[in-house]
Amino acid sequence: MNAYRPIASDIGFILLDVLRAQDTLAPLPALADNADPDLMRQVLEEAGKFVGEVVAPLNRDGDEIGARWQDGRVTMPPGFRDAYQAFWQAGWPALSAAPEDGGQGLPTVLEMVLYEWLSAANHGWTMAPGLLHGAYDCIKHHASPELKARYLEKVATGEWLATMCLTEPHAGSDLGLARTKAVPQADGSYRISGTKIFISGGEHDLTDNIVHLVLARLPDSPPGPKGLSLFLVPKFYENGSRSPVVCERIEEKMGLHGSPTCVMRFDEATGWLVGEHGKGLNAMFLMMNAARLHVALQGVGLLDAAWQKADAYARDRRQMRAPVRRDPSQPADPIIEHPAVQRLLDTQRAWVDTGRVIAYQTAIELDVAKHHPDAARRQQAQQWCALATPVLKAAWTDQAFHGASDCLQVFGGHGYVREWGIEQVVRDARVTMIYEGTNEIQAQDLLFRKVLADGGRSFSTWLDRLDGDLTHTHSPSAPRARRDVDALRDLAAALPAAQPTALYPVAGDFLRAVALTLMGWAVCRLEAGANGTSPVPEAFGRSVWPECAMRREMVRAALN
Amino acid sequence: MNAYRPIASDIGFILLDVLRAQDTLAPLPALADNADPDLMRQVLEEAGKFVGEVVAPLNRDGDEIGARWQDGRVTMPPGFRDAYQAFWQAGWPALSAAPEDGGQGLPTVLEMVLYEWLSAANHGWTMAPGLLHGAYDCIKHHASPELKARYLEKVATGEWLATMCLTEPHAGSDLGLARTKAVPQADGSYRISGTKIFISGGEHDLTDNIVHLVLARLPDSPPGPKGLSLFLVPKFYENGSRSPVVCERIEEKMGLHGSPTCVMRFDEATGWLVGEHGKGLNAMFLMMNAARLHVALQGVGLLDAAWQKADAYARDRRQMRAPVRRDPSQPADPIIEHPAVQRLLDTQRAWVDTGRVIAYQTAIELDVAKHHPDAARRQQAQQWCALATPVLKAAWTDQAFHGASDCLQVFGGHGYVREWGIEQVVRDARVTMIYEGTNEIQAQDLLFRKVLADGGRSFSTWLDRLDGDLTHTHSPSAPRARRDVDALRDLAAALPAAQPTALYPVAGDFLRAVALTLMGWAVCRLEAGANGTSPVPEAFGRSVWPECAMRREMVRAALN
Repeated sequence: MNAYRPIASDIGFILLDVLRAQDTLAPLPALADNADPDLMRQVLEEAGKFVGEVVAPLNRDGDEIGARWQDGRVTMPPGFRDAYQAFWQAGWPALSAAPEDGGQGLPTVLEMVLYEWLSAANHGWTMAPGLLHGAYDCIKHHASPELKARYLEKVATGEWLATMCLTEPHAGSDLGLARTKAVPQADGSYRISGTKIFISGGEHDLTDNIVHLVLARLPDSPPGPKGLSLFLVPKFYENGSRSPVVCERIEEKMGLHGSPTCVMRFDEATGWLVGEHGKGLNAMFLMMNAARLHVALQGVGLLDAAWQKADAYARDRRQMRAPVRRDPSQPADPIIEHPAVQRLLDTQRAWVDTGRVIAYQTAIELDVAKHHPDAARRQQAQQWCALATPVLKAAWTDQAFHGASDCLQVFGGHGYVREWGIEQVVRDARVTMIYEGTNEIQAQDLLFRKVLADGGRSFSTWLDRLDGDLTHTHSPSAPRARRDVDALRDLAAALPAAQPTALYPVAGDFLRAVALTLMGWAVCRLEAGANGTSPVPEAFGRSVWPECAMRREMVRAALN
Repeated sequence: MNAYRPIASDIGFILLDVLRAQDTLAPLPALADNADPDLMRQVLEEAGKFVGEVVAPLNRDGDEIGARWQDGRVTMPPGFRDAYQAFWQAGWPALSAAPEDGGQGLPTVLEMVLYEWLSAANHGWTMAPGLLHGAYDCIKHHASPELKARYLEKVATGEWLATMCLTEPHAGSDLGLARTKAVPQADGSYRISGTKIFISGGEHDLTDNIVHLVLARLPDSPPGPKGLSLFLVPKFYENGSRSPVVCERIEEKMGLHGSPTCVMRFDEATGWLVGEHGKGLNAMFLMMNAARLHVALQGVGLLDAAWQKADAYARDRRQMRAPVRRDPSQPADPIIEHPAVQRLLDTQRAWVDTGRVIAYQTAIELDVAKHHPDAARRQQAQQWCALATPVLKAAWTDQAFHGASDCLQVFGGHGYVREWGIEQVVRDARVTMIYEGTNEIQAQDLLFRKVLADGGRSFSTWLDRLDGDLTHTHSPSAPRARRDVDALRDLAAALPAAQPTALYPVAGDFLRAVALTLMGWAVCRLEAGANGTSPVPEAFGRSVWPECAMRREMVRAALN
C-alpha cells in the first residue's frame, strides 16, 4: 500500500493560475504581506512535505491498531503523538490564526489545503487538530478576557487540543433537545453535569491538556435551542488538578479508527460561560461555514486518495485485452486501458479538481467576508460562502464515499481486502456524509434557509455572478454551463410558489442540481486555465453532467 | 440490534399472487407434485422460521469474532457449525436438488428465496452453503460415474461442503491467465499444484470433508481459457488420509468476516477430471446464471435487511419537528415523518420488491428452461435468464451497497457505530458488486454477449414479451412502462451500427437503462396484484424512474 502523496504543483495551478487567489487576497489589508504567489507556493511545498513524510505513513496503523481505551485513558495509535507534537511545534495549526494570537496570519485557503491533504493522508489523525481553528474562533470572538488570557494562545497554536461537546444520546441533529445542566456558582463559574456522545478527541495522549467547549442548559433556561449556552471546561485546571470529565468509553466504528469517538461524562465539572446566556448555538454556528468547508475538503482529499490508489493499481494490473491499445508482447493489458476503468478514474478526477476549484474559491471568499474594506463586497462574499458551503459539504462528501467505492471496484477482489488500503478510504469517508450536519440537513439548509428565506434574491445574485464569470471565461464548455445557470434560475423562480411540503422531499435533488451547475462553472474555469490535456471536461460532460437536467426535472415534478 | 426477520407472507404475495408461479411451474412434469401453492407457502414458512431463529442470531458474532485461522486450520464463529449441521440435516441444501440424488425436487425459486433470506440474515454464514448447488450441478452434469458415486449425494445434501477454486493472484476477472498445473498419472488421476486465492470456505470446521473444484492446466495445454480443465480434489480422500491442500492464510476483509476467504496451496494433490479436457470454463459457466442470480438475491436480501433496520429506527427515533404530521405532545417527531427519510426508505422498498419480482420470475424461467417439454418455450426461458441475470446481478448488488448506505444515513452518527448493525450490512454488501463477475463485467456481458452477439434479436424478442405482459397488466403505470420498453427498443436498434470502442464506456449505462425498464415492468406487476397501499409505485416514479431516460441519453450520446 502506498501512502498518500500531496502534489503541491496541482494545488498551485488551481489556486494561483486558475483562481488567481493572489489578485483577490493581496489587496486585503490583513493579508497584504501574506498572499504573495511565491510565498503561497512555498507554504504549499512545505505543507505537502510534512503531510507526506510525517502524517501519511501512520495511516495504516491508525486504522488497524486504532485508538484504544482503558480505564478512562485513551492511547492513540503508534506515532500519532510524535507527529502531532511536531505538527504544532512547526506552527501548522496556527497557519491562518492572527499574528497577535500566536498565528501566522496566512490566507484561510492555505489552511484549507493543508487539512484537505491531511485528511487524504490520514483522516483519523486529522480529526484531532480538525476542530482547533473553530475552537480558536469561538474563544476569540466570544470568551471573556480572562478566559482568553488562559486559553486563546494555547488553542491558536495547537499546544492544547480542543473538542466540541454538542451531541447527546437523544439529541443529534436536533441539538435543542440537549439536557446537560450548567448550575451557576457564586464565583461566576458553573458546574456542568451531563453526558455527551460522539466527541471526537474527547480524550487522548496527544497534548498535555484538552479544552472542551460544551453546550449546556441553565436550570432556569427555556426548553429548545434558545435555552442552550456554551461553556469552556478544561481537562486540567490551572492549578494542575484534573477536572471531573470522564471518558466512559470510545465507540466501535465502521472506520476512522485513528480518532477516538468518546462518550464524555461531566460530573459537576467547573466551567466558564463563553458568549451570552442562551446564545450557545449562535456561538457555534458562527464557525459553521468554515467547519463545513473543512468537511467538504475532507471529501475532496479522501476522493483524491482513492483516485491515487486506483490510478496506480490500474496502470500496474494487467487483465484481459483492451479494446484499443493492446500490447501483443504481454498476455493481457493494463486495466487502465479498459474504457470502463478509464471513465471511472476520470470521473473521480473531475470531482476532485472541480471540488478544489469551488472549495478554494469559497475559502478565498471567507477571507474577503472577514477582511474586505467594502461592506458590499463583504456581503457578497458572505453570500457565496452561505450558498456554496452546504452544496460542497453534501455533494463532495457523497462523492468521497461513492467515488472511493468506485475506485475500490478497480481493484476487483483485491479492493475488498485490507492489503491495498482502498477499503479503508471507503470506510473512513462514510462519516463525512453524517457529521457537521447530515447531508440531508445541508440540503434543507440550502433550500429553505439560504435560497427561499429571502425569496431567492441572494441565490439569484449568486447565479448572476457565476454567469458573469462564465461570460468572461474562454472555455468551450461555457455555453453549456451558462444554459445550466439559466435553467437553475428558472427553476429557483418557481420555488417560492410551491408548498413547503412539496419541496421537502426534493431538497436533495435541488442541492444536486446546484452542485452540478457549480461543477460546470468550475470545469470552465479549469478549461480556461489549462493546456488542454486534462480529461476533466470530457469526463464531466459524459459521466456527470447528464444528471443535472434530471435533478432539475425531479424538483420540477414535485412542484406540480 | 435486531436480527433479520423473514416475512413469508411478503414472498408468498409476490411469488403466488403477483407472479402466479404455480401456473407456470405445476404444468412442468418434473415439478407436477411440488408446485402447489399451499406446499410452497408451507416451505416458505418453515424456511423463514429456520433462518430467523437459527441463522440470523449468529450474524453479529460472525462479524465481530469472525472466522479465525491458525496453523492452517480455520475456526468458524460461535454457533456456525451447529447451525450448519442443523441446516443440512433438515434437508435445506437439497431443497431443489433432484430426488434421485437425495434432494426434494422443489422449484428452484424456493431455493432462491431461502438464500435471499439467509444472506439478509447472515451473509457470512451463507457463503459456506452458497456454492453447494452450483457444485452439485457441476458434478451431476460433468463428473464420471465413479466420481458421482463418491461425491454427488454428499454434495447434494450438503453433508460435505464444496468450493470453487478459480482465481489466482494474477488471474482474477481474466481466468485464462491461470497457471495451476495438473499432471496426469498412470491411474487416470492428476496431480494438482498451484496457489488459488479468494477461495470462500476453502477451509473450515463446518463439515467433515470439503470438495474442491479446481481450474488447472495440463502440461501440454494451450495458453488462455481453452487450456483450462476442471478437477475435483477433496480435503480427505476415501481412505481417510488428508490431501496436500493447505490453507495458507485467510484475508482481512472489509466485511463478510463470518466467511473465511482462503489462500489455498495445492502441493501435488491428487484430483480427478470433471468434464472434458480444455472445457473447464464451460463446465463452470453452465452454472453461472444460477450463481449470479444467487448473488443478485444476496443484494435484494441485504437491502431488505438494511431497510428493516432503518425502518424500525426511523419509527422510534424522534428528532425535530416533522413538516406535516406533528405530535405536539412530544418534543420532537419520529424521523420517519421527515420527508427525506420517508423517501429514502420507500425507494429501498421499491428496489427490494421489484428485485424480488424480477429475480423470482427469472428463477421460474430457470426451471422452465430445464424442464419444459417444448423446446421453443425452453429457449425463450433461457433467453430470459441470459438477459435478466447480468442486469439483476449488477443493478441489485449496486443498490444493496448504495441503498444500505442510504439506510445507514437514517441513523445519523449512530449508523456509523457498530451498535445498530447497519454499518455491517454496508460492509458485507460491498463484495457482492465484485464477486461472480464484477458489475462492469456484467455490463459487458449484457451488451456484447447477450444483446449484440445475435444482432439484438433475442433482446428484441424479450422486449416483446415484456411489452406483451404490460398490455395485459391492469396498472396505472403500464403506459409509462411501455414507453420505456419502446425507447429501449429504439436505442438497442441503434447499437449494432456503432463502433464497439464507442460502446465500451457506456455498457454500464445501457445496463442501468435495462434495469430501470425492467423495474418499471415489475412495478406494474406489483401494482396489478396489490391492494393499492404500497408506496412502491410512487417511490419508483419519483425517485428512481427519472434515471432511465438519462441513461438512454448517455448511451445515445456515445453513438454520435
